[in-house]
Amino acid sequence: MPVISERGIEMPNSPIRKLAPLSDSAKARGLKVYHLNIGQPDIATPEAGLDAIRNLDRKILEYSPSDGYRSYREKLVGYYAKYNINVSADDIIITTGGSEAVLFAFLACLDPGDEIIVPEPAYANYMAFAVSAGAVIRGVSSTIEEGFSLPSIDKFEELINERTKGIMICNPNNPTGYLYTRAEMNQIKSLVQKHDLFLFSDEVYREFIYTGSPYISACHLVGIEDNVVLIDSVSKRYSECGIRIGALITKNKELRNTVMKFCQARLSPPLIGQIIAEASLDADPDYFRDTYDEYVERRKFLIDGLNRIPGVYSPIPMGAFYTVARLPVDDADKFCAWCLSDFEYDGQTIFMAPASGFYTTAGLGKDEVRIAYVLNKEDLGNALIVLEKALETYNSLPRK
Amino acid sequence: MPVISERGIEMPNSPIRKLAPLSDSAKARGLKVYHLNIGQPDIATPEAGLDAIRNLDRKILEYSPSDGYRSYREKLVGYYAKYNINVSADDIIITTGGSEAVLFAFLACLDPGDEIIVPEPAYANYMAFAVSAGAVIRGVSSTIEEGFSLPSIDKFEELINERTKGIMICNPNNPTGYLYTRAEMNQIKSLVQKHDLFLFSDEVYREFIYTGSPYISACHLVGIEDNVVLIDSVSKRYSECGIRIGALITKNKELRNTVMKFCQARLSPPLIGQIIAEASLDADPDYFRDTYDEYVERRKFLIDGLNRIPGVYSPIPMGAFYTVARLPVDDADKFCAWCLSDFEYDGQTIFMAPASGFYTTAGLGKDEVRIAYVLNKEDLGNALIVLEKALETYNSLPRK
Repeated sequence: MPVISERGIEMPNSPIRKLAPLSDSAKARGLKVYHLNIGQPDIATPEAGLDAIRNLDRKILEYSPSDGYRSYREKLVGYYAKYNINVSADDIIITTGGSEAVLFAFLACLDPGDEIIVPEPAYANYMAFAVSAGAVIRGVSSTIEEGFSLPSIDKFEELINERTKGIMICNPNNPTGYLYTRAEMNQIKSLVQKHDLFLFSDEVYREFIYTGSPYISACHLVGIEDNVVLIDSVSKRYSECGIRIGALITKNKELRNTVMKFCQARLSPPLIGQIIAEASLDADPDYFRDTYDEYVERRKFLIDGLNRIPGVYSPIPMGAFYTVARLPVDDADKFCAWCLSDFEYDGQTIFMAPASGFYTTAGLGKDEVRIAYVLNKEDLGNALIVLEKALETYNSLPRK
Repeated sequence: MPVISERGIEMPNSPIRKLAPLSDSAKARGLKVYHLNIGQPDIATPEAGLDAIRNLDRKILEYSPSDGYRSYREKLVGYYAKYNINVSADDIIITTGGSEAVLFAFLACLDPGDEIIVPEPAYANYMAFAVSAGAVIRGVSSTIEEGFSLPSIDKFEELINERTKGIMICNPNNPTGYLYTRAEMNQIKSLVQKHDLFLFSDEVYREFIYTGSPYISACHLVGIEDNVVLIDSVSKRYSECGIRIGALITKNKELRNTVMKFCQARLSPPLIGQIIAEASLDADPDYFRDTYDEYVERRKFLIDGLNRIPGVYSPIPMGAFYTVARLPVDDADKFCAWCLSDFEYDGQTIFMAPASGFYTTAGLGKDEVRIAYVLNKEDLGNALIVLEKALETYNSLPRK
């Protein structure tokens, strides 16, 4: 049998995936499992998007252009303008989800052995895409004590060497919900300028900012236009995770031309998804208001509820729909697994993502979990009760 | 400005893409351009597929499983069984087009510097996916004189070294339309066994075999089940190029688990595309008969027409919907560009793909073009007239 690749062996298996079989068997035992582990919103997709395909009058589902339909890209220009992101249709490349945008950005910018610095905890799949490109992620740790704010720039400087090619941020942040301040974004800008780095900025949660604080996009930073690669996706914005439509935006022409070579190799992004995403730009303003209000309520409900549980602490996330909370356990990986394999309360249990999988630095996040608030308040309320009971039981086990 | 990656520079720009701007400007001058260059069929998508989305009753367009919907994979088992390909739903991974299947196969099997041997001319994007994975394609040339049959196995053996990890074939072949015989497939099998190689087999054109010769899938080869990676796609089968649904099929469990890590990183294949593809499996049998009959006629019409033009020679392709033809020109790249930039006949011109882009060996295919017969007979007839006139004019130019 021929041997698989080194990179295949190195590819991470996230802790969520490791726990998925336990979740399946909990369901098989008849338990109701509250999915606090994933970013799959329960919010309905806008009717405008669904109508677009119900009324589809095409006879042939043909290839779309490799950079996506121009009509969609032109309409996106107006969408971004509302956030003071001034781009042209030619700066936008439509991708197969934000995932492909990250992969193509890495393939186009990074050679095997090149390094990028990522504040952690960070979205686990950045690591997977880095491994795919043969690149190395160097984590700079943020801490729950400091609310996961940007680590000191000195810590970035310490890691910079001749292989450092870029910095990757997620803003608002998955998994922490942190929103970088203007001062922090300016610090990042200076660093990028000083060392001439790429700045990969994943801003797919810009609709979900709850504090009134300004949203500072990497595209707002003047003077580093050729360094910035914006990663975007409609998945969360319109609850359209399944259609796999994202975007890679850059004003760097050489980079755009290079990314296009990867786009042309895979021929085109999904046709139907683009039709849905384009139509969703016309969604009723009520849709966004209702969605936003719902997340605001859920956030308050979840964070208040978490901080009422003895020994649990969650900072208040400013955006996205996740929080990283500290639990009174020695090993959150074991605790999360135990919740699925050994615990139940009133026929229910919870599936949380151990935070260790969001750190590249071994040993960090051992007592932290990521919790997504993509469930309705009733379910969130029940999940909080189950969590409190689970912690009580777990911490009174003889082996503790 | 930070520098892009070496692999970005190395990524090939296919000759088709280089000519696309010339085609656009020919259209801007008001010319009718016959697209003989691409594999975008003009055949309608099955109504069963279109109806599935017109009647969609989902409220949330959510992520699908990373390996695709089980219902679709189970239904595919029956589809493959009709071709005596015996696989289970667990052997099938749904991908974002056949393109992603090739990319993930290469990422999972090949490390930077690893080599695969590909009979050429070959689908140009294999090269692009190899570059993405840092791998190297070694071409073994087939020739128009031998009808593009499998090159001598000795030529493969000559290239095998410690970095050789696999062989990639396309059967029926794009661009040549060649269909490997049972004897040839057995030769490949012996080679794969002898050197314990992966056999990547792209068989997306299995519906389009016109000669009554048997279709020998790589999955029919007994004893190399753990070596075979089947690449598939619904793009051509149902004229659904835009929905981006393909498959990677392997019975090698370790490889499957590794490919799944890449699938999980990109979360899921397109949801709507899977719904369309699954419904298309129920397409009316008349659909396939009509489509098949149409291609049979077009093939005869095109190949007869080509071979009637003085100095032009095309072998008779056994499958797919392309042929590689020899033209009486010194440089087909220049001739194809000239057709778009300088020639017109009766307000029309033709866009053909120079075959040089399908060879990795420099200098090969200089007088060959790939012609797709995805246009209706009337258009094909006009295109043949334009080609004949273009050759006459080109070869009587003073510089010749």
